[in-house]
Amino acid sequence: MLLVQKFGGTSVGTIDRIRNVATRVARAKSEGHDVVVVVSAMAGETNRLIDLAKSAVNEPDPRELDVLVSTGEQVTTALLSMTLLSMGYKARSLQNHQVHLVTDSSFTKAHIKRIDAQQLRGALKRGEIAVVAGFQGIDEEGNITTLGRGGSDTTAVAIGASLKPYAKNNLVCEIYTDVDGVYTADPNIVKDARKLKRISFEEMFELASSGAKVLQTRSVLFGMKFDIPIHVRSSFNDSEGTMVVNETNDMESVVVTGISYDKNEAKITVIHVSDKPGIAHSIFAPLAEAGIVVDMIIQTASTEGYTDMSFTVPKSEMKPAMQILQELVKQKKAIYVVGDEKVAKVSIVGVGMRTHSGVAATMFKALADARINIQMISTSEIKISVVISEADMKKAVEVLHREFGLG
Amino acid sequence: MLLVQKFGGTSVGTIDRIRNVATRVARAKSEGHDVVVVVSAMAGETNRLIDLAKSAVNEPDPRELDVLVSTGEQVTTALLSMTLLSMGYKARSLQNHQVHLVTDSSFTKAHIKRIDAQQLRGALKRGEIAVVAGFQGIDEEGNITTLGRGGSDTTAVAIGASLKPYAKNNLVCEIYTDVDGVYTADPNIVKDARKLKRISFEEMFELASSGAKVLQTRSVLFGMKFDIPIHVRSSFNDSEGTMVVNETNDMESVVVTGISYDKNEAKITVIHVSDKPGIAHSIFAPLAEAGIVVDMIIQTASTEGYTDMSFTVPKSEMKPAMQILQELVKQKKAIYVVGDEKVAKVSIVGVGMRTHSGVAATMFKALADARINIQMISTSEIKISVVISEADMKKAVEVLHREFGLG
Repeated sequence: MLLVQKFGGTSVGTIDRIRNVATRVARAKSEGHDVVVVVSAMAGETNRLIDLAKSAVNEPDPRELDVLVSTGEQVTTALLSMTLLSMGYKARSLQNHQVHLVTDSSFTKAHIKRIDAQQLRGALKRGEIAVVAGFQGIDEEGNITTLGRGGSDTTAVAIGASLKPYAKNNLVCEIYTDVDGVYTADPNIVKDARKLKRISFEEMFELASSGAKVLQTRSVLFGMKFDIPIHVRSSFNDSEGTMVVNETNDMESVVVTGISYDKNEAKITVIHVSDKPGIAHSIFAPLAEAGIVVDMIIQTASTEGYTDMSFTVPKSEMKPAMQILQELVKQKKAIYVVGDEKVAKVSIVGVGMRTHSGVAATMFKALADARINIQMISTSEIKISVVISEADMKKAVEVLHREFGLG
Repeated sequence: MLLVQKFGGTSVGTIDRIRNVATRVARAKSEGHDVVVVVSAMAGETNRLIDLAKSAVNEPDPRELDVLVSTGEQVTTALLSMTLLSMGYKARSLQNHQVHLVTDSSFTKAHIKRIDAQQLRGALKRGEIAVVAGFQGIDEEGNITTLGRGGSDTTAVAIGASLKPYAKNNLVCEIYTDVDGVYTADPNIVKDARKLKRISFEEMFELASSGAKVLQTRSVLFGMKFDIPIHVRSSFNDSEGTMVVNETNDMESVVVTGISYDKNEAKITVIHVSDKPGIAHSIFAPLAEAGIVVDMIIQTASTEGYTDMSFTVPKSEMKPAMQILQELVKQKKAIYVVGDEKVAKVSIVGVGMRTHSGVAATMFKALADARINIQMISTSEIKISVVISEADMKKAVEVLHREFGLG
């Protein structure tokens, strides 16, 4: 079997931990597997490099920033490879100009275009453990690029996809992290949260994009697109983690698979705007121009030609967003703008929602019974999210976890 | 004119110093020159990375060590390029997989085979300042290599050579360092040591290889081979430094150009070896096998079929060398082996020696008059070296500096 093992910054944060990783990699190799390892920079290193850049110039050039921070993963590949070699294993570090992981030229947030797996196949055929730098690539001109935060997960799954023919579909992408799998809810909040043995790509994607930090959303999309099974597991113990796989029929018998929350959003309400065509545009166009991403939006029913508009933005963007919207008040298009940082988003996710009706009603009733006020609601095919007061968040997650029988 | 400017680790040791370098580079560009900058790792960074490797494994794999330490220069290229960009100059960092600086596969001590200057020419034609990582290359298979300590000087001169046709021979390689040129002797030792305006490649090579640390010997050989004028100057002030150029006729009117010393050698004497064919081989073959480089060798006149053999090795190698030679004593091929760390080598260098006789005699008489005992002598066409007691070194340099009228 081909194992693509990805180790994050915490797992390779010290020389001792790199030794632990080497032991684990070596064991997989000894068991007869082909092994490709994808590593992040040692914990703290990427931030150290970014700070170095910011001490040099206020706004570092994106191309040069990528040249700088990509050294972080390169260091880890070398340290892990020399450790494996000293243990008597054949190993070889590979940077992205060697692996030919080609991206577009969007420095600091590049997208993978293709991987020429020839080098990797060669290394595997020679019996070597290939140790690849995560998070980075080269563009068509050979410039160094990076994939943005969390990009190493994506590197690992993309490498899995590129080696699928070589592995004759017999492969797993193992994402080693500091938690031992995907849970029905955050175990820090819900005492009887249960580790999931399996979860579908769709559910994982919705959980990840609504606050669960266990896996990067882009890597989930890659896994879904190329059907690469992802095993999320802990780098600190040997217990089985959670398999993220394509949906199977039996999955739909469970209505709700997991509950996620997100405390990093803030709610902004624009009060008493005239309810005319184009008003949404006049609110959201200047925000988009400023690069502020808006998540949920609700509009209250119109009263005498006026309405209130509420939406959520990342907490860090609340102040700049409100400054921009003050312009509407000056132009007398709105009475005032109010922001609320003390909110949280709680989401329930499950492919079973497709076939089970009344899930939303059950959710809202459970929250009402617990005297939790719902401020905003949004839904997708397999997810229902509500915005509530941050003070109610913990209780909401516990109540829903019990209500949908996840314990 | 094309300027290839090389800045060493001290010159780029802090963000402030990188800013100073950027100012100097920008000035050259503003004056209308094509500029390629070659940078070392920030002072201390290479050692930090090597220490990191040694904390991971006892003997780091050479290939992986190169992957690790080459990140040091990459960091500097990015920091300098983003600084230049923030000042409004077009600049672009280039690593060696981008410059196509191809070396052999001798990891940690690779030799340059060729540079495909296409990328560099492209950057220069676009009006960009090209900022190249010194000290490193790639081999034919795309593996990262390094040129060994001081390799950045060699990178700079080699890049100059590769761009000579582009520059139509109108180029200078500027080596910025923490001294402001090449002196007739170390100014720390000789008060009236004089900065040389010009020196020939041959003389510079002999001075560098006999202890003067101002320029790396391999870079001098490259400059000589491809006739690239090298300007050695300070990165901390604007004064003219020393031009290292091809020999001209007027140079020979000066007999001795400079005096160098080396305190990093130790003398080993093997006492009472039987003076038979093959005895030198039995002494030096095991040393060579152990990778110990022997510099000067002298053999005393044979007495009754026995002789003493003295030679110098790097101080750090004295102990292992003596352990190896104890084997000869065990085999009764010698009576005993004695080592002396308290020696120094003093050399006088000058192309004028070719045409002036009696230079050696003058040197030996001056030392004798100063009651300095000569332990070993070696000569080349333009250099005479003597090994003396380390305690006499300073006096010897002063005496010779005066004797040959260098003040």
